[in-house]
Amino acid sequence: MTDALATPYLAVDLDVLSRNIERTAGWAREHGLRLRPHAKTHKSPEIARRQIESGAVGLTVATVAEGEIFCRAGATDLFVAYPVWAAGERGARLRALAQRVALRVGVDSVEGAQHLGIALAGTSATVMVEVDCGMRRTGVPAGEAFEVARAADRAGVRVAGVFTFPGHGYAPGAAARAAVEEAAALAEAAELLRTNGFADIEVSGGSTPTLAHSDATVLTEVRPGVSVFNDAQQVELGTCGWEDVALTAVGTVVSRGGGRFVLDAGAKVLGADRPGWATGAGRVPSMPDARVVLLSEHHAVVEVPAGAVLPELGERVAVAPNHVCAAANLAREYVVTVAGRVTRWPVTAAGANT
Amino acid sequence: MTDALATPYLAVDLDVLSRNIERTAGWAREHGLRLRPHAKTHKSPEIARRQIESGAVGLTVATVAEGEIFCRAGATDLFVAYPVWAAGERGARLRALAQRVALRVGVDSVEGAQHLGIALAGTSATVMVEVDCGMRRTGVPAGEAFEVARAADRAGVRVAGVFTFPGHGYAPGAAARAAVEEAAALAEAAELLRTNGFADIEVSGGSTPTLAHSDATVLTEVRPGVSVFNDAQQVELGTCGWEDVALTAVGTVVSRGGGRFVLDAGAKVLGADRPGWATGAGRVPSMPDARVVLLSEHHAVVEVPAGAVLPELGERVAVAPNHVCAAANLAREYVVTVAGRVTRWPVTAAGANT
Repeated sequence: MTDALATPYLAVDLDVLSRNIERTAGWAREHGLRLRPHAKTHKSPEIARRQIESGAVGLTVATVAEGEIFCRAGATDLFVAYPVWAAGERGARLRALAQRVALRVGVDSVEGAQHLGIALAGTSATVMVEVDCGMRRTGVPAGEAFEVARAADRAGVRVAGVFTFPGHGYAPGAAARAAVEEAAALAEAAELLRTNGFADIEVSGGSTPTLAHSDATVLTEVRPGVSVFNDAQQVELGTCGWEDVALTAVGTVVSRGGGRFVLDAGAKVLGADRPGWATGAGRVPSMPDARVVLLSEHHAVVEVPAGAVLPELGERVAVAPNHVCAAANLAREYVVTVAGRVTRWPVTAAGANT
Repeated sequence: MTDALATPYLAVDLDVLSRNIERTAGWAREHGLRLRPHAKTHKSPEIARRQIESGAVGLTVATVAEGEIFCRAGATDLFVAYPVWAAGERGARLRALAQRVALRVGVDSVEGAQHLGIALAGTSATVMVEVDCGMRRTGVPAGEAFEVARAADRAGVRVAGVFTFPGHGYAPGAAARAAVEEAAALAEAAELLRTNGFADIEVSGGSTPTLAHSDATVLTEVRPGVSVFNDAQQVELGTCGWEDVALTAVGTVVSRGGGRFVLDAGAKVLGADRPGWATGAGRVPSMPDARVVLLSEHHAVVEVPAGAVLPELGERVAVAPNHVCAAANLAREYVVTVAGRVTRWPVTAAGANT
């Protein structure tokens, strides 16, 4: 019984999780795209295994440390979708990882490529050139992709392809346009590489909100992360419905009055992500008209519409975090309900930032 | 040498830390107030020990789990400054804690007091009635403090006093007024209790930004947390200067160009707190004119003024988080430089939310 569990905790609904995994996999199959889900969202070997069984070709990770953990858990094909600076101890760890799995590593600079060349010499690891498609985070402009690829080639590392992250699609009404820009940037970069002698170019993109808009005539691979769980942001963006949210933080009502109640599931459980367009700092799926108006470290203050009934003190209420990747990283375990029985899955890669 | 450490990591400057601890302790001594620093900020027994040695009467914690951890580490006097819902397993844990340390527990409802009465029966633990002073989070209006205190008394728990948190002082220019409201609410609540027969009332308030404005004619105790480390928010609020920031996240420059550089210290290290009035998602103390314009899980995108020199790829840059409590909770250890030698202190209570 979950009623005996100390709150706050993260609850995962296995039925919804399984449906989400299958839905994303089915979408990729249907569109002829390889699926390489981003494991930074869940950080769980158990969930990664289910994604692979469902047809994913491998995993995406954000850090070498995540790669090491998923490797130890049995993963055999990893893409560190990040411009890894492979000097010093990180270079040594990356090299060790490359000796154990099929490895791809992101790169977005000539200097970065040179360090990767040293770190990965003699291994089968490859690099993927990161291009920016409008988010303005990492990645070179598409027109500079060849320069980076050439540097990698000269440094002795095989170039597997190009990738981008259309993160600017995380805003209301922005997904379709971000996907168009994603396809344009990737097409330009891939064409540049192909005309300069690089063959078998992987063209990798995708994010949860833009996934349905992905251009399957350009992309060969997609890397959504959040879609495995979904979250309040995705519901508010229209990417999914409440019935698709597989993870919530369960809190106890510790205070109430004046049209508000307070849960003990605060920012140290939910994460503090709150984009300007969000209606609050998370949502209560069972009370769609309620708003999380204030989030402190150990308090979620939920306002209900005038006349709505407040939950009782001591009642348990589930909150969907705004950004599920942040919530997962804060947890040590998921409380998973499987056919009425409670089990726990460790969040093995939580905090694996290096 | 810290150059060999994998980034990102949290660096603590012991000199600044020690100065911060002594400054807060000195301020409290000078104003005749008991100091009970909030240990949720640092979650470190090593730092807690230094605070006690510096004159703190005990520690404040946010959760029973934090209390358990600091108790195991040797703390003897704890205040769980939270309206703990002491039913079920939490009640049992609270009772066990009350049998090991001098314990105070927050309460803001009649029902909460009744559960505390059952959980704490036969122990020496006391309760502190939480009043709201304008933040609108937890706590009853000051005029209702006696009702809650009476419920606790009838439930057999001794009432030690009243407390509030002036969290609405976390905004530019808001601290002085929040401190006035803090004093007004506490004075009203304390007077209500005294005229109804409650003696020796502890009157507890305080937060880092409001501390200097605390009314020492009303308060008897202060509970600042952040001041042990300070952070970008406190600098931007004018509470302290860069020279007072004891904790930073050290990241590596992984990408650069177009007036921006990107560090591998993202929201999974810094936390995602970003109040509307903040200039960005953290600050770079060594580059006061730079702004963290975008913070992803593993990326801090830093924009520098036109003409400013960008750091080189691979360079290490320290970022002050906006809200240090969030950053500390994300870490497993602090990298502490003591007289040129690097040591590590575990963040023992990270994730202790229950």
